Amino acid sequence: MSLKSHAKGSPYPSLSPGTLRIYSMRFCPFAQRTRLVLEHKKIPHETINVDLKKKPDWFLERNPLGLVPVLEKTDQVVYESLVCDDYLDQVYPDFPLYPQDAYKKARDGILLETFSQVTTAWYKLLSSGGSDEAGEKFFSVLKTYETALGDRGEFFGGATPSMLDFTAWPWFERSGVLEKVAPKYAITESNFPNIAAWQKRMFELPAVKATMFDTESHLRFFASYKAGAPDYDYGL
Amino acid sequence: MSLKSHAKGSPYPSLSPGTLRIYSMRFCPFAQRTRLVLEHKKIPHETINVDLKKKPDWFLERNPLGLVPVLEKTDQVVYESLVCDDYLDQVYPDFPLYPQDAYKKARDGILLETFSQVTTAWYKLLSSGGSDEAGEKFFSVLKTYETALGDRGEFFGGATPSMLDFTAWPWFERSGVLEKVAPKYAITESNFPNIAAWQKRMFELPAVKATMFDTESHLRFFASYKAGAPDYDYGL
Repeated sequence: MSLKSHAKGSPYPSLSPGTLRIYSMRFCPFAQRTRLVLEHKKIPHETINVDLKKKPDWFLERNPLGLVPVLEKTDQVVYESLVCDDYLDQVYPDFPLYPQDAYKKARDGILLETFSQVTTAWYKLLSSGGSDEAGEKFFSVLKTYETALGDRGEFFGGATPSMLDFTAWPWFERSGVLEKVAPKYAITESNFPNIAAWQKRMFELPAVKATMFDTESHLRFFASYKAGAPDYDYGL
Repeated sequence: MSLKSHAKGSPYPSLSPGTLRIYSMRFCPFAQRTRLVLEHKKIPHETINVDLKKKPDWFLERNPLGLVPVLEKTDQVVYESLVCDDYLDQVYPDFPLYPQDAYKKARDGILLETFSQVTTAWYKLLSSGGSDEAGEKFFSVLKTYETALGDRGEFFGGATPSMLDFTAWPWFERSGVLEKVAPKYAITESNFPNIAAWQKRMFELPAVKATMFDTESHLRFFASYKAGAPDYDYGL
């Protein structure tokens, strides 16, 4: 099936009963959260990429918010990245992504729930062109995650990656984009040693390898996005 | 135990091992989410109210974000309202607040995850003094919940209240505050019949009766908050 994006006016790609489908956009970090979980759990699925500037009506019928990721299977539709990931974790219990213990799960929940502080700071640093105010804020919110990694081990999940690893990852894969715009606020082995080491380990995971782009591609996509003409099919 | 708020400099109120404590602020809608779950599930607990303008050091040690609710039990601390509520639902399984079915749970998850659209619109309508732009946005995001109630029955949970009912409730209890500021955007039986009927039913729940304030008290608190001197102990 083609990975090219489907735009308004394109026919709905028919879905076989029982097949799990993800609606995605190749460079979307939120959709990547769910693509990572699909890959990590080895869940059979098909992918339909969507043109988020010219959204097909059949896409908006499935998610009125018009965002990816969206999961569809027979007559069931789920969206919002964290909801999609929790749903997959419950329906496909192999490689569980949460601790069994309720308290440990709640402590993960806090870091998941407040991770939007990192993404917000990330985008502000990017859009400000690397302002010190945005940079200081970014470093400040990262500290919690640096400390958490120190307590937990190789991954946020300890010896194996967890929901938190995959939820956080997409913005760390794109570190190179931030470095280009805001080199002063790069994550390095000296300022965030746990995060820097974790990034290296994450890049080795099969799920990351299956869903990632290199910095050059991310930069190209960001440039096209900023210019108002996102190149959803870049590299295809 | 006194319900008066604890301010910076006050001694840490000692906590007996095994006792569940909630740190709260009497008029905080986010803390009320967790108070509702504690009451609905009949979970024994004690309450420590916190002065959110002059936060005690021992409070900030427990939640560096400085927000309520916070749960504490022996050496365990949980915060963020939705995380607290999920934790309680897992540890105290009586009166479960989520559907058993993974897909139904995911559909609830979407409405929970996107409920911040309602709270954001609610506060904008309030702070704008009832502007039409904010009012239209508020009505627009409410429609999803009006439709969902129509599909589900008496409560978002169907015949009994669910996590979604308690997550959404605090802002609907405070409808009278919004009506005062933005009467044009009041929720009525004619514009949002399902929500209006649900509000009446919710006001009858023991958990709501145990945690609510009347509109007059909410208005008084909001006025003191707006004036920069929140009256945390109003009415005590």
